[in-house]
Amino acid sequence: MTLTQEQQDEINALREQSAPTRRAVAPGLEAILYEAIPVLDHGFVRVVDYMGDDAAIVQAARVSYGRGTRKVSDDRMLIRYLMRHFHSTPFEMCEIKYHVKLPIFVARQWIRHRTANVNEYSARYSVLDKEFYIPAPEQLAAQSSNNRQGRGDVLTGDEAAEVLDLLRHDAEKTYRDYAWMLNEGDDGTEADPSRQGLARELARMNLTLNTYTQWYWKTDLHNLMNFLRLRADAHAQYEIRVYADAMIDTLNAWVPLAAEAFREYRLGGAALSATGLEVVKRMLAGEAVEAGNSGLGKREWTELMALLGRAE
Amino acid sequence: MTLTQEQQDEINALREQSAPTRRAVAPGLEAILYEAIPVLDHGFVRVVDYMGDDAAIVQAARVSYGRGTRKVSDDRMLIRYLMRHFHSTPFEMCEIKYHVKLPIFVARQWIRHRTANVNEYSARYSVLDKEFYIPAPEQLAAQSSNNRQGRGDVLTGDEAAEVLDLLRHDAEKTYRDYAWMLNEGDDGTEADPSRQGLARELARMNLTLNTYTQWYWKTDLHNLMNFLRLRADAHAQYEIRVYADAMIDTLNAWVPLAAEAFREYRLGGAALSATGLEVVKRMLAGEAVEAGNSGLGKREWTELMALLGRAE
Amino acid sequence: MTLTQEQQDEINALREQSAPTRRAVAPGLEAILYEAIPVLDHGFVRVVDYMGDDAAIVQAARVSYGRGTRKVSDDRMLIRYLMRHFHSTPFEMCEIKYHVKLPIFVARQWIRHRTANVNEYSARYSVLDKEFYIPAPEQLAAQSSNNRQGRGDVLTGDEAAEVLDLLRHDAEKTYRDYAWMLNEGDDGTEADPSRQGLARELARMNLTLNTYTQWYWKTDLHNLMNFLRLRADAHAQYEIRVYADAMIDTLNAWVPLAAEAFREYRLGGAALSATGLEVVKRMLAGEAVEAGNSGLGKREWTELMALLGRAE
Amino acid sequence: MTLTQEQQDEINALREQSAPTRRAVAPGLEAILYEAIPVLDHGFVRVVDYMGDDAAIVQAARVSYGRGTRKVSDDRMLIRYLMRHFHSTPFEMCEIKYHVKLPIFVARQWIRHRTANVNEYSARYSVLDKEFYIPAPEQLAAQSSNNRQGRGDVLTGDEAAEVLDLLRHDAEKTYRDYAWMLNEGDDGTEADPSRQGLARELARMNLTLNTYTQWYWKTDLHNLMNFLRLRADAHAQYEIRVYADAMIDTLNAWVPLAAEAFREYRLGGAALSATGLEVVKRMLAGEAVEAGNSGLGKREWTELMALLGRAE
Repeated sequence: MTLTQEQQDEINALREQSAPTRRAVAPGLEAILYEAIPVLDHGFVRVVDYMGDDAAIVQAARVSYGRGTRKVSDDRMLIRYLMRHFHSTPFEMCEIKYHVKLPIFVARQWIRHRTANVNEYSARYSVLDKEFYIPAPEQLAAQSSNNRQGRGDVLTGDEAAEVLDLLRHDAEKTYRDYAWMLNEGDDGTEADPSRQGLARELARMNLTLNTYTQWYWKTDLHNLMNFLRLRADAHAQYEIRVYADAMIDTLNAWVPLAAEAFREYRLGGAALSATGLEVVKRMLAGEAVEAGNSGLGKREWTELMALLGRAE
Repeated sequence: MTLTQEQQDEINALREQSAPTRRAVAPGLEAILYEAIPVLDHGFVRVVDYMGDDAAIVQAARVSYGRGTRKVSDDRMLIRYLMRHFHSTPFEMCEIKYHVKLPIFVARQWIRHRTANVNEYSARYSVLDKEFYIPAPEQLAAQSSNNRQGRGDVLTGDEAAEVLDLLRHDAEKTYRDYAWMLNEGDDGTEADPSRQGLARELARMNLTLNTYTQWYWKTDLHNLMNFLRLRADAHAQYEIRVYADAMIDTLNAWVPLAAEAFREYRLGGAALSATGLEVVKRMLAGEAVEAGNSGLGKREWTELMALLGRAE
Repeated sequence: MTLTQEQQDEINALREQSAPTRRAVAPGLEAILYEAIPVLDHGFVRVVDYMGDDAAIVQAARVSYGRGTRKVSDDRMLIRYLMRHFHSTPFEMCEIKYHVKLPIFVARQWIRHRTANVNEYSARYSVLDKEFYIPAPEQLAAQSSNNRQGRGDVLTGDEAAEVLDLLRHDAEKTYRDYAWMLNEGDDGTEADPSRQGLARELARMNLTLNTYTQWYWKTDLHNLMNFLRLRADAHAQYEIRVYADAMIDTLNAWVPLAAEAFREYRLGGAALSATGLEVVKRMLAGEAVEAGNSGLGKREWTELMALLGRAE
Repeated sequence: MTLTQEQQDEINALREQSAPTRRAVAPGLEAILYEAIPVLDHGFVRVVDYMGDDAAIVQAARVSYGRGTRKVSDDRMLIRYLMRHFHSTPFEMCEIKYHVKLPIFVARQWIRHRTANVNEYSARYSVLDKEFYIPAPEQLAAQSSNNRQGRGDVLTGDEAAEVLDLLRHDAEKTYRDYAWMLNEGDDGTEADPSRQGLARELARMNLTLNTYTQWYWKTDLHNLMNFLRLRADAHAQYEIRVYADAMIDTLNAWVPLAAEAFREYRLGGAALSATGLEVVKRMLAGEAVEAGNSGLGKREWTELMALLGRAE
């Protein structure tokens, strides 16, 4: 993570302020509010605002006038019930806002989740910093041989060294040319008074997709959990999954009861197809079901056996 | 407005609590938080949570790390600029949650604004209270003769008395039968042990559309202003306009700078068509433009002259 | 269902027209296009437009230039893969538009699905017809004793008769008074020239929630399936489930491959919680798991045993 | 534009097919369906599907059973009325689907419009073609000196030549290294059997932002017009504006009446602020309003005078 001293000072200044509020307060989230959680080599995610807590979910489900007199155990039961039965609207009553710094190719995956509010740093208006993502050696994976959109073994030796070299060199070179084209004198270059400088909205096209950008990203709890379920999944690309993992920590700090139910019914749960359910029933009835008589395709059979812990 | 003592006590209890927060705090809104603002004969609107303030709009537009050191006058200029140029995303960074009690026919108009989160009191699950909207005599308007969806003069005399009588009587009668069908012993009736009682999800269909319902309604500042612009408009139905008017008061208390820009560029502003703009230019050039040579339809001509304060 | 002769003639006229198009055509849906499928006593649902077919899902997933040369069996495999792995965007490429006539209390449940486009018949602008839903005797259910939002046994005898009587009588009475207040001379009443008539936007509040309304409702295939999964579920209220059932027939006619995958992975599938999955694994390993040592709450245990066909 | 022969053949094959449909058909759009309209140096936009026409807007506004017997002039009047009064739902009843090939930095602006359905070509799954956007010499603009996000004069001479050289060279170099890292033997390189090849999801990060991508993009007419109003505006970046301009041609071909109203009330219209409206009134009343006594900021005064054609 690269925060300048000035940025860190601004964050510290925010953290030192405090004011009384009549709103619901989530102590776990207050403790880490504004703090940048490092992700990848230069990225971070930090919570910059939030609204609501576990009790707000319960209040909304009951459309109540006050905070209610029920016990935490009742709240927990209700929240689990709502999660189990896919009730989404009570969870929509909580809202969270993140400030995220991330490589552009990750931002392009992320933005496909449309049910969020986004303000991105504008490279039409401002000059992007010279920061780009270079994978750590242990993340430098080969193409998977059996999954067209997955990773295989880690590259090693000369090939790994050459790849890292190319990534670094190309990002350096394209950024240097970007800065030259801008002719704004940033980052060590000096503005040449005999040149006009290319428009920022054009020059940016010369940057590579591992350049870091940043945005404010705000969503409600229901849509946050949808995002996390997909992006914290083992099939998600590593470079977005690490952001999702960091955000799950903030979820735990914010709404511990909802987070627990999320782990039980979403993250740790499983979806069975109609035929898959039938296979489970047959197995429980003592039948020796095999791939051939399961009614499932080969791939689905393998996935189901893995899910049930029965992979040979 | 009809709040039971118990409900008022719950609200008071919430208002007496206070806790420190590191988040942005809007003092104007804290002052009225949770308080029910009366609307119509039994309705209300009250703010039950919020996120962000004027500074949050500015922060998001700048994707900044801290609260910034700029002056209020700079914030004001930027917010006006954003509003004038229809930048919506910075306003989406603020969020507000209302608890609203409203007649069902108003709720049906309201829900057409889809960009909000809603939790409504469930008449499948619970019994609705015996409360229905009866217009005040000065709101008992005749059908407009020239606007198919508008109101004309106020009804008076026998017709007015008879209408009020019918509204009251029919609502009373249908509610009494609803309660009888439920056989739950609410509202003065006594449950008859020899009867089973109709399912709540069915019995509710006997209620009239002026029965009050309630919901939690949450939206972001951008969509709130869209809602208010349409529903605080002179052409909106009176029964929803009074809610919008009350909510504009909460807008002023929450984000005074954005609210000021909203009045300047939305509520008090006007949209000219291409031809209407041409007419204005011609008039400014000294030409005596008339309906016949304006290029506008009759109705548009009348509307434009009214807008320009030139109605004969 | 109540279609006037004029309405049926308009529908027939549309069905007789045909024109060539270069777009994808779904023969199964063309066959029933515009036809009103009866639902409840006076309602209907009819498809009035659509866009795309099974092949369009495949095209979008592949971002291809043409229709492709692959076989139907390849398309089927890909569609099943997309459905199984919760890929939503290819399904969003198909769109369908319905014209629905439905009781207002059903419309109020339906509209909670916000990801659709809706144009409802306006009772501010026009007079509603005298049509209201009265449950068939076999649908006149008592309140469930163990499910706060469910139905129990069917009412019989005097109570049933009295309920039907009240529903009918109250709807008749409130509609008659609505018509009188309007003083527009509709439905057999005669306009009284000495009266002005109440504004339509006010008079409508006197109608009961079983009055029929109608709307155009348009959504994409992904959101349609979300709607159908929730509303064709056994826990959905009967009066909306019958609409979902009719719409599943149109789904089968429109995109047979997607519809088959929908039944396999959504309608007929099941979601297991983390603990539920653990219970299944333990049972498959031969352990005699019971409610007490399952780690599940009592209700979840019962639900899981029912799902696995092991209810005692 | 670069279409391979195979792609052009696929498009031609689609254009030669035709089948009867009972749906509304828009002849103007049928004529150009599937055809690629060239945009920028290698991009295009082509309509691949649509639903509805001008009559569908009218039908939805009236919630009618058939196509109606009204005249085109009535339809035109109603559509203009709906547009003038910002009724959005009838326009949402029409839907259109585009296939677009565009540089990634343009795609990143475009995707900020969230109310659309998108399927993008996946660089996790497939290898991107070697195609990147290089501005035409007359589009090689300097940074504007008075607008932080605008363009100034066109670059000329050595600076222009050098910029074009850098853009070309860097894109070539980064693509060549991308291909080498993939080790898939595409584009003239040869796969090296001694290497594993970097995962596609990682290698793509080495590409520059002017690399072309492509997607299926589907939206309704209301949101399409919102998009076009913002992106065909003079302040939009040239590289997205040319796409919007091409799409306005398809709008004209599809729904000529709605397109005409769009030009009259959106594209060619203007928004006045409350103070701006006051200024116009005062000027019409003969007052010699000046910047100083207008109540407007300097910038707003200049903008208003330009709008009224009174710029000195």
